[in-house]
Amino acid sequence: MAETVGPALLPIMEPLRGWLGTWRGEGRGEYPTIEPFAYREEVQLWHNGKPFLGYGQRTRHVDDGRPLHAESGYLRLVSEVDAAGVVHAEGVIAHPTGITEVLDGELRGGRLVLATTAVARTATAKEVTTVERIVEVDGDRLTYEVRMAAVGQPLQHHLSATLQRVTGPDEAP
Amino acid sequence: MAETVGPALLPIMEPLRGWLGTWRGEGRGEYPTIEPFAYREEVQLWHNGKPFLGYGQRTRHVDDGRPLHAESGYLRLVSEVDAAGVVHAEGVIAHPTGITEVLDGELRGGRLVLATTAVARTATAKEVTTVERIVEVDGDRLTYEVRMAAVGQPLQHHLSATLQRVTGPDEAP
Repeated sequence: MAETVGPALLPIMEPLRGWLGTWRGEGRGEYPTIEPFAYREEVQLWHNGKPFLGYGQRTRHVDDGRPLHAESGYLRLVSEVDAAGVVHAEGVIAHPTGITEVLDGELRGGRLVLATTAVARTATAKEVTTVERIVEVDGDRLTYEVRMAAVGQPLQHHLSATLQRVTGPDEAP
Repeated sequence: MAETVGPALLPIMEPLRGWLGTWRGEGRGEYPTIEPFAYREEVQLWHNGKPFLGYGQRTRHVDDGRPLHAESGYLRLVSEVDAAGVVHAEGVIAHPTGITEVLDGELRGGRLVLATTAVARTATAKEVTTVERIVEVDGDRLTYEVRMAAVGQPLQHHLSATLQRVTGPDEAP
């Protein structure tokens, strides 16, 4: 149901035009409570002419391709670009592990920095308390870092990945 | 990236096997603060062999087909079926309007009843405080009702829809 062809991107979302499309690559995760792991990832960023981008990702184990993680959500730009080139951004993400993130931050050029203002979770979910996400798009390359405070551990590096563009903003995935 | 063909559904998710697939139909929305509206909807429920179902939906205006709403999230069954035929269920949903729902409830036969234990939101989102979701699957028909407390209004009916199965659990969408 991706709709990267069709409705025009709203002017307020224009700073994210170069983010639209499908991205694939590899990443690595680590945290004091788990063994380090490597993963393959696909990210989809789409729009439907309304003032948000849709976001979905799936990861698989780098060795045997078994599904590891998925998450989905939405990214909003909620201000015009200011004199310093900064746009106010907000995000929401749901995780199949029973966690939701509400994020606030800013986009400056191709660099998006978001931190949770709220993490909510179901009764069976792990205790995640803070997530920081730094995402950069430079042409056909998307890189990100996720930092996390969880299960009693202080905020620290958790994930990093480098993805390459598979389909651009003007191609149906 | 839907993966309804492939990995086996885990035993704990078996009570939701008949929910998997793509569903389409129409619904109606109302609330004291808005004009009543009708919509067309497509829902996708998928799994990847892990202990959750992925959930996504999109709605369009019934007249001109313009996009109205989207939401995405995950549904988990977190207990075995008990002697009364009840399974403990949890859900998380993200909305492009900057809202997240964390839901708790139960599945009894084909009827799922969930209520939010937490609603979190970005600074620009509307003040939604409680959401109740009642979803029933009966063969090839899926019906739901959404009740909501928001913007100072008490918990009350907001949405209802009837969808028909388009693809089943064993067909790729």
